[in-house]
Amino acid sequence: MSTILTGIAASSGIAIGKAYRLVEPDLTFKKTAISNAEEEINRFQAAIDASKDDLQAIRNKAAVDLGEDKAAIFDAHLLVLSDPELLSSIEDKIKMDKSNAENALKETADMFISIFEQMDNEYMQERAADIKDVSKRVLAHLLGVKIPNPGLIAEEVVIVAEDLTPSDTAQLNKEFVKGFTTDIGGRTSHSAIMARSMEIPAVVGTNSASTTIQDGDLIIVDGVNGEVHINPTPEVVEKYEEVYHNLELQKKEWALLKNEATISSDGVHVELAANIGSPQDIEGVLSNGGEGVGLYRTEFLYMERNQLPTEDEQYEAYKKVLENMEGKPVVVRTLDIGGDKHLPYLSLPSEMNPFLGFRAIRLCLEETDIFRTQLRALLRASSHGNLKIMFPMIATLDEFRSAKSILLGEKQALVESGHNVADNIEIGIMVEIPSTAVLADQFAKEVDFFSIGTNDLIQYTMAADRMNERVSYLYQPYNPAILRLVKMVIDAAHKEGKWAGMCGEMAGDEIAIPILLGLGLDEFSMSASSILKARSQIKHLDQKEMKQLAEEALKMQTADEVMELVKKTTSL
Amino acid sequence: MSTILTGIAASSGIAIGKAYRLVEPDLTFKKTAISNAEEEINRFQAAIDASKDDLQAIRNKAAVDLGEDKAAIFDAHLLVLSDPELLSSIEDKIKMDKSNAENALKETADMFISIFEQMDNEYMQERAADIKDVSKRVLAHLLGVKIPNPGLIAEEVVIVAEDLTPSDTAQLNKEFVKGFTTDIGGRTSHSAIMARSMEIPAVVGTNSASTTIQDGDLIIVDGVNGEVHINPTPEVVEKYEEVYHNLELQKKEWALLKNEATISSDGVHVELAANIGSPQDIEGVLSNGGEGVGLYRTEFLYMERNQLPTEDEQYEAYKKVLENMEGKPVVVRTLDIGGDKHLPYLSLPSEMNPFLGFRAIRLCLEETDIFRTQLRALLRASSHGNLKIMFPMIATLDEFRSAKSILLGEKQALVESGHNVADNIEIGIMVEIPSTAVLADQFAKEVDFFSIGTNDLIQYTMAADRMNERVSYLYQPYNPAILRLVKMVIDAAHKEGKWAGMCGEMAGDEIAIPILLGLGLDEFSMSASSILKARSQIKHLDQKEMKQLAEEALKMQTADEVMELVKKTTSL
Repeated sequence: MSTILTGIAASSGIAIGKAYRLVEPDLTFKKTAISNAEEEINRFQAAIDASKDDLQAIRNKAAVDLGEDKAAIFDAHLLVLSDPELLSSIEDKIKMDKSNAENALKETADMFISIFEQMDNEYMQERAADIKDVSKRVLAHLLGVKIPNPGLIAEEVVIVAEDLTPSDTAQLNKEFVKGFTTDIGGRTSHSAIMARSMEIPAVVGTNSASTTIQDGDLIIVDGVNGEVHINPTPEVVEKYEEVYHNLELQKKEWALLKNEATISSDGVHVELAANIGSPQDIEGVLSNGGEGVGLYRTEFLYMERNQLPTEDEQYEAYKKVLENMEGKPVVVRTLDIGGDKHLPYLSLPSEMNPFLGFRAIRLCLEETDIFRTQLRALLRASSHGNLKIMFPMIATLDEFRSAKSILLGEKQALVESGHNVADNIEIGIMVEIPSTAVLADQFAKEVDFFSIGTNDLIQYTMAADRMNERVSYLYQPYNPAILRLVKMVIDAAHKEGKWAGMCGEMAGDEIAIPILLGLGLDEFSMSASSILKARSQIKHLDQKEMKQLAEEALKMQTADEVMELVKKTTSL
Repeated sequence: MSTILTGIAASSGIAIGKAYRLVEPDLTFKKTAISNAEEEINRFQAAIDASKDDLQAIRNKAAVDLGEDKAAIFDAHLLVLSDPELLSSIEDKIKMDKSNAENALKETADMFISIFEQMDNEYMQERAADIKDVSKRVLAHLLGVKIPNPGLIAEEVVIVAEDLTPSDTAQLNKEFVKGFTTDIGGRTSHSAIMARSMEIPAVVGTNSASTTIQDGDLIIVDGVNGEVHINPTPEVVEKYEEVYHNLELQKKEWALLKNEATISSDGVHVELAANIGSPQDIEGVLSNGGEGVGLYRTEFLYMERNQLPTEDEQYEAYKKVLENMEGKPVVVRTLDIGGDKHLPYLSLPSEMNPFLGFRAIRLCLEETDIFRTQLRALLRASSHGNLKIMFPMIATLDEFRSAKSILLGEKQALVESGHNVADNIEIGIMVEIPSTAVLADQFAKEVDFFSIGTNDLIQYTMAADRMNERVSYLYQPYNPAILRLVKMVIDAAHKEGKWAGMCGEMAGDEIAIPILLGLGLDEFSMSASSILKARSQIKHLDQKEMKQLAEEALKMQTADEVMELVKKTTSL
């Protein structure tokens, strides 16, 4: 039976492959009485051994892909499987209570977990988490249920999930994972951003992929049109193979632009940079011809951990990025945590409207220790490349002045203590709050650059949560109000001899690019995978014509009118 | 011991009086065995009788203050106290189980409540709520615990509470309730808005008033400086009595302006209107010299009920307001529900960021039945006065066009079926979303008027939840970015020959008024209690000078600079 699901085209391209469902396994079981305890203990031992094999394989793979430090997590898991106290407690329970292994395992593990969790000691709490994770795996083996493990995939597949967390996505191996589709998420959800950064085709927000698709179904992920084909007919497969082939040809054509500058048909140069989340992403930036990093999201350094990263850990990461970018500009955004992004080790109050809450620079100006540590790490790394520092969520000039003064204070202290700090670090801000766009002329007198963060700017300007499907129709990058704010920011920068970039999704959007070129945007920062296509597009655009187009667009009444105008003018 | 708490000055004025704590009583008790059932039944009967007396008194008072329809709730409560089945069940339980009356009452009432609640029948569910309410009162009498009843207060008091709901506030009798103070809330919380509308001094957000203050403490609520004095010294009381006296003198002076037009010293007329929540508020509007209603919040018609108000119920309310305003303009805002305002009978999805969610016009354009009913009621009422209709939370022109087209459709249908509908109803929008302010020139071509809703406009423009104390420093009405958006809206309106009003808190703020006058705002809508003071202020301002002031303010960098400028220029 052939079915088509529609969703949101989150990452371009075509993927064809067998479905691999990444869903929580059903680990329910009944407590039963057993007659032969020895047999049951053997069954339990076999499950332990199988789990050890799993974990050893995962550990080895993690060491290669992610480094020895990340692999150490799995060493801790393996230790749990050899813990004599835990194992003998379970075996005793099987013998004494005549309990089936599943129940003996669950009850014993739960008891250990609850004891460890109650201890006011971070180390013991981590052990509780380890036991939870490991006992789930042993239980799955006892029940003969598969625990999906994206890190172990060794054939070409399409991942199907309800949602993918950043850590799920980070484990995906591009060699085998050809694409993915999820039930929830939008174009700017984290899974979508990761998909683009990994250049894997993805369709998100299908509502029902994880419930409709079975393991092994043949799947086509059409990341261009936002469609997912389940067990398509041979004719459909053939058609998509042709589309895939053409896309590959186009990619080859674009690849020729890798080492070229980005110059419009009438000779205007703009910079195409990439948004990254970690040092590992640099390879993709360079292979896609990125002229710089326009947004380094440092949050990922702080996530999936149990404590704050040290100054040295951060220094190493920043240094690596700066060195690998070989003198090309790298704009580092200081910590943007809070809102929908929480850290397990930093307790923040729960808020009624987290997107309008205590996050990013608001938090850093209060938790100055965290902020100062990051700034010191950045300043120390600055001598290894071309660093620019950018503060997120700036709403008032006072906030910028406070943040800058903390930065300069740390700089002076480092210089005085003999550290090597670059002299020419530009200090800029994200423009993602309407007040800052409206007051850009005043900000431009004090900042070195602007980078327009359209994901948030659109959300606040339209007063619509971009994650909320009921109001997603209001997430309108082409709304003339958004274009006017963008113009205010660019004009304000230029009047003071500063530069203006954009690091939201809009910067890589083929409808927006002609207008942004016309408005005079200096730097476009996007997913690395979009750079070559954007360069190809801009080479064919005349900046003077686009200026006229932009002027017309600013006079439009609705986003739809703007879209029609761009399509008509640039024959997209 | 004398203590001073500081909080947010939510409603101006000075109140001096004994504390009356409006807090949930402690109704915990122990189940005990009794020896004399007859005595226990007598004790129970006495509690029933005392409760009947309470309810009769509340009922009579409600009939006078709120009308017979509202008083009917208490008739239902009185019926519960005479229900033979309920009473005899409780008495049986006392006799048979030798249970103390508290326990017999609680167990029996809980049983009845749970039976009624499970019935899929609205009437029976209301009965469950009645029993819950009434049994709490009887239990309080059994335990000798006071149930606070603001409706029965008969001496001059200052109310002390953790928070006040709209219905608590509505029950307060202005004759005796001289002021209030709460632990939570901000300047734009509902309790603060109600306090201003009732002209009761209030200090909110003290964090600890309800835990620090005891019943009967002498309290001074300083609604000018946001201070609460607990058991002050005689010197402090004397000082405040003088302040109070001066305020009363000033009020008398202002009262002379009641029937005057609002005209600046150089002869420019502006309109001072009031924000209201119900027909009862009209009296205060007229007694304070309001020249119109600039914002009628219709949500209150929908709240504190079990089902949607019918078209006729709404018609009666709108007609009453229009008639009582005697031809003066009345701007009615269509339903603004969702966000932080929920209706018990309308199930809405819970949202991660409700302020950026599915609310107001967004909801009305989807739930068109609710919207059409309200519009028909408004159209039918239109022949009774000077009605203007205003849509809230408009973010795009498409939304305005859809809402207007539904309105015109209903109008045509009513006219065709022979109803009398006014011909000249102006149709306008709230400007409370940044996109709409930025695109005001386009909107001005299609709307009849703008009313700037600053409470939300500031919150979205600064990306800061105005209810969230951690980011409350960003709620900046004087931020130059806000002033610029306000200017865009006013200029856009005037260019198309339309008028622009403001119905947020800012319209009645003495620092903002000079700037707004200078920017050319046509209508200022505020708490009725602020009107005379504002009129007095405007009479002493020269509009041409204020225009210069406004121009300077627009060039400022921060909200503080603007505040200093206004204070310096107008000697506030």
